[in-house]
Amino acid sequence: MGGGRIDVYMDIVSLYSYLAFLDLQQNGELLRAHNVEVEFHPVLLGAIVVGSGNKPPWTLPAKAVYFAHDVRRSIARFPGLVIQTPKDLMAVSKNIIPNRALHFIKSHHPPSTFLTILHYFMYLFWSPPNLDLTLPENVAKALLECPADFDGSIAAQGSEGVDKKKKKLFTKEQVEEIMKGTETPQIKEALKNTTQEALDKGAFGNPWIWVTDGKGRQEPFFGSDRFHFVYKFLGLPYQDVTLLPPGGRLVLSEGEDTAKL
Amino acid sequence: MGGGRIDVYMDIVSLYSYLAFLDLQQNGELLRAHNVEVEFHPVLLGAIVVGSGNKPPWTLPAKAVYFAHDVRRSIARFPGLVIQTPKDLMAVSKNIIPNRALHFIKSHHPPSTFLTILHYFMYLFWSPPNLDLTLPENVAKALLECPADFDGSIAAQGSEGVDKKKKKLFTKEQVEEIMKGTETPQIKEALKNTTQEALDKGAFGNPWIWVTDGKGRQEPFFGSDRFHFVYKFLGLPYQDVTLLPPGGRLVLSEGEDTAKL
Repeated sequence: MGGGRIDVYMDIVSLYSYLAFLDLQQNGELLRAHNVEVEFHPVLLGAIVVGSGNKPPWTLPAKAVYFAHDVRRSIARFPGLVIQTPKDLMAVSKNIIPNRALHFIKSHHPPSTFLTILHYFMYLFWSPPNLDLTLPENVAKALLECPADFDGSIAAQGSEGVDKKKKKLFTKEQVEEIMKGTETPQIKEALKNTTQEALDKGAFGNPWIWVTDGKGRQEPFFGSDRFHFVYKFLGLPYQDVTLLPPGGRLVLSEGEDTAKL
Repeated sequence: MGGGRIDVYMDIVSLYSYLAFLDLQQNGELLRAHNVEVEFHPVLLGAIVVGSGNKPPWTLPAKAVYFAHDVRRSIARFPGLVIQTPKDLMAVSKNIIPNRALHFIKSHHPPSTFLTILHYFMYLFWSPPNLDLTLPENVAKALLECPADFDGSIAAQGSEGVDKKKKKLFTKEQVEEIMKGTETPQIKEALKNTTQEALDKGAFGNPWIWVTDGKGRQEPFFGSDRFHFVYKFLGLPYQDVTLLPPGGRLVLSEGEDTAKL
């Protein structure tokens, strides 16, 4: 039963992409149990916003005020997650180098390595003191320092949380190879093409989630708050938002299928 | 424990307001059990969009395509709900007369009467054959024909579902009084002031949900899909969107508080 794919087009400069990533990571085991594959595709959010004719929500004053509420509430769904918006978000958002590095790593390293560095880049961008990843030297430094077992756990939040002595994800040679890779035509094209692919699939923002169900049907989902719709589309069992009676709580029933997990 | 208020600023021409209304009606008993009061405030959506400098999402082509998905998925959360968008939505959206009528009814009739006619107006506007409520004669006809026990149940969906012989919500004299009321300065001001109130509370769209918790703290919530945030803000027990294991389901635990309901 079930089965399908979730393709996430996302830029590390999109906070809601980071939250969607965390949600999908948290539900990773369950999604695998339902035979649903998840793949992340780095894109340039700026090119998607421009290409679709959209404008960032904060360009309207009333929306900017409201979105500050929505962002705070959305972050609060991930206990322990420390987020600080970079001071000059627009300036540090032209993250071409790290997105190219991600494409190189995706095509030259195992999927788990790609997921670890993707997570680490988002963590460095969104956690204080907010590393500026538009600078190639900062990207190289981040690649060198990324712990092999980085999982964004609470202890690692805040820049002091990263233990410099831990086993690293990449060797110095691998980092050099990755940084060289960001200058190759293939990798430049890969980032451009993936961004265009998202636009062709209707994207006007990030994360743009393209879902394929077990029968091959495909639909787009936008943002980090549409997973109830994604689960329904994939035919997966889920509980929607439910107000409970005073003192009430929901518990998972012990079915025979459940016992297998 | 609990307690608080949910003030919903909404226009009958806003489909997401209709869905928020249905959600709050479905959870009406539970909200009362938590001592949460719900009040609906008719406003002019057009004036809020213009007043905040916003644009409707369908003015961007990529958003229009995506929102058709989102609308369909949002409607599907209410089994049996039949929705048809009016052919010329912009033209029939200047619903000044029915919104004034709602303000008159709100201040001259019991709350249950107000909720019934509010529901009936949205039903007539959004169900085929989509009554044009910009015309005063259609508003008067709708007021005259509204069944006293209209609750939007599935049998009543589609225009043939309304039994013309049923007891009516208003007498002919009451309808005349309501229609006259829509031309009074007090009612004209009431609609204007309520719309301005929503703008002052940060609205850039509908439904604009202004929530006050048991301690008097207030925050805005936008749309029909933020009730998990509303429940959290009010300190109510709720289940958030949850992916379940294969064959899994959630059941309400039998606590002593639960038994009271």
